[in-house]
Amino acid sequence: MPTEPLADGAPQASLPRWLTDDEQRAWRAYIQLAQLLMRQLDRDLHPFGLSMHDYEILVELSEAAQQRLRMTDLADRTAQSRSRLSHQVSRLESRGLVAREGCEGDKRGTFAVLTELGAAVIGQVAPHHVASVRRHFIDQLAADGLGALTGACEPALDRLRQARERD
Amino acid sequence: MPTEPLADGAPQASLPRWLTDDEQRAWRAYIQLAQLLMRQLDRDLHPFGLSMHDYEILVELSEAAQQRLRMTDLADRTAQSRSRLSHQVSRLESRGLVAREGCEGDKRGTFAVLTELGAAVIGQVAPHHVASVRRHFIDQLAADGLGALTGACEPALDRLRQARERD
Repeated sequence: MPTEPLADGAPQASLPRWLTDDEQRAWRAYIQLAQLLMRQLDRDLHPFGLSMHDYEILVELSEAAQQRLRMTDLADRTAQSRSRLSHQVSRLESRGLVAREGCEGDKRGTFAVLTELGAAVIGQVAPHHVASVRRHFIDQLAADGLGALTGACEPALDRLRQARERD
Repeated sequence: MPTEPLADGAPQASLPRWLTDDEQRAWRAYIQLAQLLMRQLDRDLHPFGLSMHDYEILVELSEAAQQRLRMTDLADRTAQSRSRLSHQVSRLESRGLVAREGCEGDKRGTFAVLTELGAAVIGQVAPHHVASVRRHFIDQLAADGLGALTGACEPALDRLRQARERD
């Protein structure tokens, strides 16, 4: 982003606090790495017919009690909008990896449930995906990088999640 | 992702090195924050009719010599696939923010050029976008978070970029 404001002569209510060089560098390293990583992990999942978003949905279900989650909870956990998640779950459903079930005595929504086939696919794909995460990310971090990264990201993550819940 | 391999009885060529709890925590904090941030920044750009990807394209052009970049270089800098970038540039072109120009005496490709209108739009939007990046990310970092983040991300970013160039 520009580091200098445009001199357009118009008074501004509050001057923008432009990013310093160090802030700019950290921000760009962070977000560009995330974008490249998502693309690379997507590419590595491609031979299995899954995208990163598909994979995340299957993993969240595989770790949930009875391998099922309310759609709204699944949207929160995968950082997806509800409409996009619904579309993705439909695609996974058509492949037999996920099933949708109504929620007896609870009108608040539908559950997504991992099928046996879905569980088998996750079991098959996970070792390859973990190797990919290691190769492109974890194994590139210096010895003190793990803790530094967690410490830097978790407060911002918690805050953004809370903001979403208030949406 | 599962932290235990499925016991399916089949021998494996090489045992997966599953992520440790600390690695898992760092990886999830990193990637989930990135996904939520992208969505939040997108939402904050929405009143201006731009997505994060649109904004990144305009910024890269605004910082380039003569505010122009070869399409292939623009794809590299914005971490986009060439087909997706081409589609996005077409949309920006139809709104008069970017123009495409052939490259005289050079058959290697087309240039994308920021128009006057595109420059004016970036000038108008940048203060709001920077405020958004500050609010949701930079100002959430602890004092030592900036350097830690840059130090953690840049080596992996450099490596992924080099890998792409060999594609």
